[in-house]
Amino acid sequence: MKIPPVKGTRDFYPPDMARRNWIIDGWKKASWRNGFEEYDGPIFEYLTMYQIKSGQEIVEQLFSLEDRGGRQLAIRPEITPTLARMVNQQINSLPRPIKWFSVPRLCRAEKPQKGRLREFFQWNIDIIGENAGEADAEIIFTTLDYLRMVGLTGGDIRAKISSRKLLAAVLKDIGIPAEKLDALYVVLDKKPKLPAETFAALLAEQVPDAGQARKILDFMAFDSIERVMEIAGADENVLDAARDLQRVLAILDWMGVGEYCCFDPGIVRGLAYYTGMVFEVHDIAGGLRAICGGGRYDDLLRDFGGPAIPATGMGMGDCVLEILLQARGLLDKQVPQRRLEYFVTVVDRSLESDMYRITAAIRSRGHSANFSYKPGGLSKQLKEAAGQKAEKCVIIGEEFKEHKLVVKDMTTGQQETVSMEEFLNRLGSGQ
Amino acid sequence: MKIPPVKGTRDFYPPDMARRNWIIDGWKKASWRNGFEEYDGPIFEYLTMYQIKSGQEIVEQLFSLEDRGGRQLAIRPEITPTLARMVNQQINSLPRPIKWFSVPRLCRAEKPQKGRLREFFQWNIDIIGENAGEADAEIIFTTLDYLRMVGLTGGDIRAKISSRKLLAAVLKDIGIPAEKLDALYVVLDKKPKLPAETFAALLAEQVPDAGQARKILDFMAFDSIERVMEIAGADENVLDAARDLQRVLAILDWMGVGEYCCFDPGIVRGLAYYTGMVFEVHDIAGGLRAICGGGRYDDLLRDFGGPAIPATGMGMGDCVLEILLQARGLLDKQVPQRRLEYFVTVVDRSLESDMYRITAAIRSRGHSANFSYKPGGLSKQLKEAAGQKAEKCVIIGEEFKEHKLVVKDMTTGQQETVSMEEFLNRLGSGQ
Repeated sequence: MKIPPVKGTRDFYPPDMARRNWIIDGWKKASWRNGFEEYDGPIFEYLTMYQIKSGQEIVEQLFSLEDRGGRQLAIRPEITPTLARMVNQQINSLPRPIKWFSVPRLCRAEKPQKGRLREFFQWNIDIIGENAGEADAEIIFTTLDYLRMVGLTGGDIRAKISSRKLLAAVLKDIGIPAEKLDALYVVLDKKPKLPAETFAALLAEQVPDAGQARKILDFMAFDSIERVMEIAGADENVLDAARDLQRVLAILDWMGVGEYCCFDPGIVRGLAYYTGMVFEVHDIAGGLRAICGGGRYDDLLRDFGGPAIPATGMGMGDCVLEILLQARGLLDKQVPQRRLEYFVTVVDRSLESDMYRITAAIRSRGHSANFSYKPGGLSKQLKEAAGQKAEKCVIIGEEFKEHKLVVKDMTTGQQETVSMEEFLNRLGSGQ
Repeated sequence: MKIPPVKGTRDFYPPDMARRNWIIDGWKKASWRNGFEEYDGPIFEYLTMYQIKSGQEIVEQLFSLEDRGGRQLAIRPEITPTLARMVNQQINSLPRPIKWFSVPRLCRAEKPQKGRLREFFQWNIDIIGENAGEADAEIIFTTLDYLRMVGLTGGDIRAKISSRKLLAAVLKDIGIPAEKLDALYVVLDKKPKLPAETFAALLAEQVPDAGQARKILDFMAFDSIERVMEIAGADENVLDAARDLQRVLAILDWMGVGEYCCFDPGIVRGLAYYTGMVFEVHDIAGGLRAICGGGRYDDLLRDFGGPAIPATGMGMGDCVLEILLQARGLLDKQVPQRRLEYFVTVVDRSLESDMYRITAAIRSRGHSANFSYKPGGLSKQLKEAAGQKAEKCVIIGEEFKEHKLVVKDMTTGQQETVSMEEFLNRLGSGQ
C-alpha cells in the first residue's frame, strides 16, 4: 500500500532540511542579538483559545480534534494565544519588559497556493510590558535586522508602517461610530488585494456615506505622517497617534534601517486585536504576499484572563520568505553544505578492528566519519567515500604497523602519511 | 477567561527551552559526527499510515482529526512510517546506505505519568539499505556516543541487546507455530514490567504447554550468547542468529563502548515490525522506563508499498532522558546560560540617537545588546542592566564628545574608556 503526504504539507529531505535549518537558525541568531529569549508551547491547545481573538479567517482554518476525554482541541494556527496564556500564568514572576521569541510549527487548513501551505514555520518576536514606541521600533528593527542579515536590501523590501490608533482617531474624526470599527478594519485590510471597484463596493457596505468613504480613501493614500497632521488640523487624538508613529520612524532611522521603512496608512492588518502600530514587510517588486506582519496588541493579555499589559510583536512565515530568497539568489549560496569529513578505509579487512577504533576516535573528537559496511578492496572503499562526498579518506594500510595512517584529500588527491597520535591530536578534543 | 494548557503537554519558558535546545543540539551533534543527515516530515499524516504497522498500543493513542475535505488524519505518534513513505518516494535516486536522523515532535494520547507525556520530542536515527550487522552496531554506537557525550557512564546506563531473529529461531526450535509469534512478542515484551506471576499467567494464555513456557523463560534469563549457542545444539537458525549478534557486540567492543553493552534476551520490543537486532538502553539503577529503544525492521518499507529494503534504527524520547540527566546532576551544569552581552546606556537622553546607533552597530556585529525603553538617569539604566544580567554596560557620556565610550564590566565593576572605533573593531564583523 502506497500513501501520499497530506495536501499542503511538505516532506523535508536532507537538502530541504538544510534550507529550513538555515532559515530558522538565522531567525534565532537575529532574535538573540536583539535581546530576545526563546519559548515554545504545545502543538495543540483547547479549541476555545483560538475562538477568543484570532479572527474569523483563522477560526475557519483550524485543524480541530477531540481527545478521548471529549476535550475539544485544535492544532495551533498561531502562537500568540499560547504566548498570552503563558505570560499570564507567570505574570508576577517575569521581569519586564518580556522580550521573547519562538519559531513554532503552525497548521492552517487553507487552500494550498504559492506562499501558503497547511503547515509552516513562523518566526515570532514579542515585547510585553512596555507601551513606549521604543518597543514598537525594536520589533520592526529586529525584523529588518534579520532580513538585512540574509542579504535583502532596501531595494528588495519595504517595511510599511501605520497605526491602528491613528486610523481609529481618523475614522472617529470622520464620524464612523466606534462599534463599526472592527468590521471596517477587515474590509480596509483587503484594499491592496482587491480591484479598486470591488473594494469601493465593499467599503460602501460598511460606510454608506460617500463623503465619509472618500475621506477614508484619501487617508489611506497619504504618503507622509506630516500630511496626515496637516489635514487633521486640531484633532488631538489624531495628532497624538501621529506623533507616536513619527517617534517610531525616527528611532528606526537612528538605528540605520530608515531606508527600509515608510509610512503607509493602507496597512491595516485583518486581526481584531491590534491597538497601535501595525506593519507589514513587502517585496518591492510586489509579486508576493506580505513577508511578515505585526503590531501592537495592548488588550490581548487581558482578553486571556490576565492583567492589562501592553504588548507588541511580529510573525514571519517561512514560505513567502523562502520564495523571495530563492528569487533573489540568496538561498542556495548561503545554506551551508555539510560534508562528511572523514571516510575510514582498510587495505586489508584483518585490520577492521582498527578501522572501527579510529572511526570512533574521530567521532568522539567531534568530527564526522563513516566507513564501508561492505567487505571490499581499497578501491571500492575509496569509490564509496567519493560517493558520500567525503572530504578526506583515512587509509589504514602497511604504514599502520608503525602506527602511521595515510590521509588522502579527496578534492586534491594529495596523500600524507602521519602518525596516529599526530592525526588524533590535530582533531582536537571534540567537546 | 483563563484557559489552562492541555493535560500532558508542556509549556517551555526560556529556562525550559534552554534545556530542550541543549538536548536536541546534542542529538544533532551526535548524529552529524556519526554520518547521519537530517530529514523531517509533516506533523500529521493520513490516519491509515499508522494503522499499517505501528502496533495496537500506538493506534489506540492516536490524536486523529478530520479535515474539511473529509480526510482522516492523525498527528504523528512516531516518525518511522513517514520515513518509510519518504524513502519509498525517492528510492531510486537516494544513494545507499541512507543514514538519516530526525528530531520530530510527536503526540500520543497516553495517560500522562513520569517520563510519559502526550507531546514529546524523539531523536530518531535510521540506516536504510544495509543488512550487515555493521549497520546495527552503528545505530547502537551512535546512541551510546550521544549518551556518553552528555556524561553518562557505564555505571549509569546499559544497552541491553538481543535479536528478534534469534528469539524467533529459539521459539521455532521450542515448537511455537510461526503464526503465534506476533502476539507472543507483545506478551514477552511485558516481562520486565510485570510481577513474575502475572507474567506467567499471561504467557500461559499464549503458550499452554508448561514445558514450552519453561524453555522460553529459561532462554529469556540467559546472560551470554555463548550459553544460548550451547543449548541450541545443532539448530542452524539459532546458531546463525547468535553469530550475527556476536558480530554486532564485537564491533561495539572495538568501537570502545563494550562496557555499556550486554546481551539480554529479555529485550523483545512490543512493535510488530522488528525482524533482527533489538535493543533498549536502561538506567542501571532501574527506576525509569527505557531511555530509548530500536532494532532492525527489514520488511517495513515493503509494507509501505516500496521494495524490500533492509533497515535498522533507534528512537529516544526527551522525557525519560531529561529525568535521568537531572537525577545524575548532568543537566543544569551543562545547559549553556545565554547572557545578554551589552546594555547600552546614556548619561543624557539628548544623546539617545547615539544610543540607538551604537545598539544597532553591536547587534549587526553579532552580539546581543539591549537599552532602556524608559527615560531615566544613568543609575536607573545600570540597575535595569543588572536586572537583565548584562555582562557589560556601554556608557555614552561626557567622553563621547571625543568619540569615546565607557565600557563597564558588570561582574567585576571595572570600567574602561575606549574609542568608538576600537570598541566596534573588537566586536568583529559579525557574520
